[in-house]
Amino acid sequence: MRVNDRHVSFYYENDHDMGEVSINKPTTALLVVDMQHAFVTRPKDRQPAEAERWEQFYQAIDNIVVPNNQRLLKAFRERGMEVIFASIRTQKKNGADRSLDQKATGYNELLLPPGDPWGDIVPELAPQDDEIVICKTTDSVLTGSPLRLWLNNMGIDTVVVTGVLLDQCVSGTVRSLADESFKVWLIEDATRASTQQIHDNELEILNNIYCHVINTDELIAALG
Amino acid sequence: MRVNDRHVSFYYENDHDMGEVSINKPTTALLVVDMQHAFVTRPKDRQPAEAERWEQFYQAIDNIVVPNNQRLLKAFRERGMEVIFASIRTQKKNGADRSLDQKATGYNELLLPPGDPWGDIVPELAPQDDEIVICKTTDSVLTGSPLRLWLNNMGIDTVVVTGVLLDQCVSGTVRSLADESFKVWLIEDATRASTQQIHDNELEILNNIYCHVINTDELIAALG
Amino acid sequence: MRVNDRHVSFYYENDHDMGEVSINKPTTALLVVDMQHAFVTRPKDRQPAEAERWEQFYQAIDNIVVPNNQRLLKAFRERGMEVIFASIRTQKKNGADRSLDQKATGYNELLLPPGDPWGDIVPELAPQDDEIVICKTTDSVLTGSPLRLWLNNMGIDTVVVTGVLLDQCVSGTVRSLADESFKVWLIEDATRASTQQIHDNELEILNNIYCHVINTDELIAALG
Amino acid sequence: MRVNDRHVSFYYENDHDMGEVSINKPTTALLVVDMQHAFVTRPKDRQPAEAERWEQFYQAIDNIVVPNNQRLLKAFRERGMEVIFASIRTQKKNGADRSLDQKATGYNELLLPPGDPWGDIVPELAPQDDEIVICKTTDSVLTGSPLRLWLNNMGIDTVVVTGVLLDQCVSGTVRSLADESFKVWLIEDATRASTQQIHDNELEILNNIYCHVINTDELIAALG
Repeated sequence: MRVNDRHVSFYYENDHDMGEVSINKPTTALLVVDMQHAFVTRPKDRQPAEAERWEQFYQAIDNIVVPNNQRLLKAFRERGMEVIFASIRTQKKNGADRSLDQKATGYNELLLPPGDPWGDIVPELAPQDDEIVICKTTDSVLTGSPLRLWLNNMGIDTVVVTGVLLDQCVSGTVRSLADESFKVWLIEDATRASTQQIHDNELEILNNIYCHVINTDELIAALG
Repeated sequence: MRVNDRHVSFYYENDHDMGEVSINKPTTALLVVDMQHAFVTRPKDRQPAEAERWEQFYQAIDNIVVPNNQRLLKAFRERGMEVIFASIRTQKKNGADRSLDQKATGYNELLLPPGDPWGDIVPELAPQDDEIVICKTTDSVLTGSPLRLWLNNMGIDTVVVTGVLLDQCVSGTVRSLADESFKVWLIEDATRASTQQIHDNELEILNNIYCHVINTDELIAALG
Repeated sequence: MRVNDRHVSFYYENDHDMGEVSINKPTTALLVVDMQHAFVTRPKDRQPAEAERWEQFYQAIDNIVVPNNQRLLKAFRERGMEVIFASIRTQKKNGADRSLDQKATGYNELLLPPGDPWGDIVPELAPQDDEIVICKTTDSVLTGSPLRLWLNNMGIDTVVVTGVLLDQCVSGTVRSLADESFKVWLIEDATRASTQQIHDNELEILNNIYCHVINTDELIAALG
Repeated sequence: MRVNDRHVSFYYENDHDMGEVSINKPTTALLVVDMQHAFVTRPKDRQPAEAERWEQFYQAIDNIVVPNNQRLLKAFRERGMEVIFASIRTQKKNGADRSLDQKATGYNELLLPPGDPWGDIVPELAPQDDEIVICKTTDSVLTGSPLRLWLNNMGIDTVVVTGVLLDQCVSGTVRSLADESFKVWLIEDATRASTQQIHDNELEILNNIYCHVINTDELIAALG
């Protein structure tokens, strides 16, 4: 199967053929980023106007992103392939270990201390057995994290990335992985930004330079 | 001076006040990213249609980005502040040291070996004296680079970022810096993506979470 | 109190005065390395000759190293100072995430998978509350680990190092910390190599270049 | 050829057989550490008593270490194998970019700014063509350096280490390489500590856990 020609940016307008979708199972891992209640579950205490503004996001999560991550987890687990999770979670109750982009005022000013259930990965996508869970205090899953070394040690050279938020932790992670010479497949219907517009913008920016953007069907077909 | 309310994304629509533009000169560095001929000078051998497509980019470089970087360099140098450059440049003639995102087919398939004048920083912005130049084989200036440690050692905690391409190396660098707990100011008229649309999209994505986006006038005013 | 002049190597024979023992409590952490059953508890299945060879090590652990680590933990905890633990522990049951020096044949060919009680930190020194525990698959606590970034984020610039084995994980950690610009105090009677001779050799090698070697009494006196 | 049984420490007394000396040429690099005038050339201004104390070191450098590094360089270059150099060298004239272990008082308080000929690699071992030279402000060649990533990108998985000082930068580098899953061969007669005693102590500490210690003849024989 040829890589699709969706989400092609200005840079690649004249260069649509991006090669073959091909997965070597023993060296490929699935990385599910930050599918925690704090990011994908409707908060109970939100003001109605704010809740309304975000409703389109949660519907996409419920109807598209969670089901597709379930399908991907099933496909990887059935084939004995590596599955890895990331979640934002401090070590210290006061969050002193967070990096500045998570301490600062604004959307990302967040504190998910040890034991806070709001920081748990949603039960539909819960890690199993000895699947690795990276607890991070950064946006990119690679910054200040053992993941790069563990992937190298496990012989993983290709990472299939899903999760939220596409323009934030997912984008940072995709860029870090590519810079560390991993081949990256970003699954467009298993990730999400806050709005459709930001989602489309970020996919176009990342595609063909840091990853290839494909969808869940295409990835699963490539697993054979 | 308050931080402006331009480039505010969905995440921050209800939270416009992002604090004060304030710079502590001894702990702030200017980082000029990839202002090399390969990225900002019109190639001689380009097909006319392709040259036409890119002309708007080079005009923005010539008329806006280079002059504003010159003003920023002058302002930092006059105040004895730290100035740092990054450039894409391999160590090996065959480019074997490049990360995958620079080896792979596509826009970023580039090889700038030692001594290639096409990899030189443009003369208007040439490094002086003992200003640090990071030669990188990645997109983020921090991945696999000594910069983070050197900034820590020099007591730098704030970085003013300029250069190209906004959605690629600049975005990756801004994200890495924020994840490493540096405060980042991104100068909107001293950086550039390939098109105005991608430029605006990326500024909106990065602003207020990984950096504050201000312009050259605002930054220079804050230097006092 | 002046730094003592014990363990002075050839390099410093003519330069004995190494300054003051002085600790700034809010920016200093205690790091207890690998005080796990696997390294400090007598294995039940060891051959008599081998057990006899190692007996001097376990006696030093029981009589000197564990009690002094208890004193240090108490002193740090009473003052509200940061306490951090490292332990060797894989994420994967098969140990695929281990680095080569832990996978290879020899002394360090070790596998401490999730849940293995042999990998637990000994109960006398058990971590409490939200004290950080780094699970590592390397010897240096900093290689491929979040510790450096977390220390930076927490404002820690000085690390008091204890634990085992002095010439292996402790030495690698001390060297990495110094290279990352942390001030290091190595506590000679709260760490241990397999034999007195290797212990003395390694202390002499590390002292005054990567750390200052002092003892538990001296460190606690400096805490005031 | 079996790995020799020299420099066997307490840990391996009962486990002498460490396998085969075998080198895969396309994935093996030679790393020559800090063979700069500052470390291997007699300083002109040294007091006679101090010069006398160090004379045994410089004689070992002149008679053993430099010639064996020349032989190794020749052997690697003739076979088209990768050759890499490290040197201690600041970017800033005032050395602000140095890590604490190079800024602090003591033996390692050293400043080798850009252009200082005392920081040059000795001419007998001068880098050629596009051989990589890492300029570092740390002791381990890997801390805060692009080397790990470049080695990964170049497909190098084995490193032959030589240079000075064995117990300092060489030991830190060997430990870092092993922690990053490189196979390491340390060449005992192409490296050196300040004294024979420290030299022997450090070889025993490193051998069989972080590297295998062999000599120049053994390594060259293994190249075939």
